Amino acid sequence: MLVDVISSIAEARSDLFLNRTAIVVDVLRATSTIITALENGSSGVLAVETVCQAKTSRQPGDLLGGERFCKKIAGFELGNSPLEYTEEVVGGKRVVLTTTNGTRAIQKSAKAAHLLAGALLNSASCAEAALRFRRDIIILCSGTQDEFALEDGLCAGLLVEELANRCTEPIVVNDFAAAMLHAYRSARPALQEIIMQSSNGRKLAKIGFEEDVRYCCEVNRTSVVP
Amino acid sequence: MLVDVISSIAEARSDLFLNRTAIVVDVLRATSTIITALENGSSGVLAVETVCQAKTSRQPGDLLGGERFCKKIAGFELGNSPLEYTEEVVGGKRVVLTTTNGTRAIQKSAKAAHLLAGALLNSASCAEAALRFRRDIIILCSGTQDEFALEDGLCAGLLVEELANRCTEPIVVNDFAAAMLHAYRSARPALQEIIMQSSNGRKLAKIGFEEDVRYCCEVNRTSVVP
Repeated sequence: MLVDVISSIAEARSDLFLNRTAIVVDVLRATSTIITALENGSSGVLAVETVCQAKTSRQPGDLLGGERFCKKIAGFELGNSPLEYTEEVVGGKRVVLTTTNGTRAIQKSAKAAHLLAGALLNSASCAEAALRFRRDIIILCSGTQDEFALEDGLCAGLLVEELANRCTEPIVVNDFAAAMLHAYRSARPALQEIIMQSSNGRKLAKIGFEEDVRYCCEVNRTSVVP
Repeated sequence: MLVDVISSIAEARSDLFLNRTAIVVDVLRATSTIITALENGSSGVLAVETVCQAKTSRQPGDLLGGERFCKKIAGFELGNSPLEYTEEVVGGKRVVLTTTNGTRAIQKSAKAAHLLAGALLNSASCAEAALRFRRDIIILCSGTQDEFALEDGLCAGLLVEELANRCTEPIVVNDFAAAMLHAYRSARPALQEIIMQSSNGRKLAKIGFEEDVRYCCEVNRTSVVP
């Protein structure tokens, strides 16, 4: 089984996704938020690329969520902080979500045969779910503005490890997947501290979202796999 | 001091190099070959992008070296195997070299204030030389056909470590540099085996260049810094 990791949206050509199971990773924070919303009883999350699409996709009872430049969008009920997506707020409700990178990555992966949302929060269950489709796998690190983001790469490395541990046949990885697997293994003992020092970790802490970063670093907190 | 690592030529915008010291890395095999040629007494290596440029740049006494698709170019004296660049062959002679990725990466870095060739063979000396220029540093992994190559990433990680160990001020790295540093630390105990299993390692072994791969994995074999 092939397992390829793609470093950012800029590197993600559509044909790479054909006939594969795709896992989109945006640890800080889109996929962590989607997972949290579903864990807390949201009836579904619709990921759209633009603010305009979010507004026109809204149906009665839906919540609008998302961010631009890490901040809540004017007129939206929710930002992109997973800690906002509590049971009280999202229980039984559908969320229409648009974020700067994560929802773009999801759209970019639309040609995949199956599409899953991965994060540190659900990595073991996500790997298990991906293997059930019995197809080659592609993991897309959303990154930030077409650049690689450390937290997504480390999560991809963890996913490769979880896949290798569970797959009954040998897995063949691309060079970037091998690099991320090694990076994750070295970073594992201090994962939270290392992600706090990443570009997005520092940026989010600076504008008051340090708790979000800590939360998003909780490995295998849930078995929900969007 | 800033130390950024760029994953492949496709990601290398020219403005990233302005006012910086650049280290170009193409472990398999262009920068390993250039280092070896100079170590063995070549009077200089001129890296050019095309076969045509190589032929027109040739002066009496020069040797032409290079490869396309890992193989020697018709009419050239030398391929891109560092083991061909012995003292007997290159001593006192200038080499005009063109390779698929490494020489393109060197051309791409032309706007840097200073430009060094790095590989596993010379990483400690290369880091030392780069620090002497007292500028921010950019490390360009040449990769293969615009894609990331594991051996270049691991070498970049080693260079970041060598720079951090030697720099008297704290170094600030981009996310990709942090990932490569971690990847290198995890891969270090089995560096040669891991690079043998990389995409280029397997490709070169398959066409008879396994010895080249082993040689290019010898860390700090020389203090030559082109």
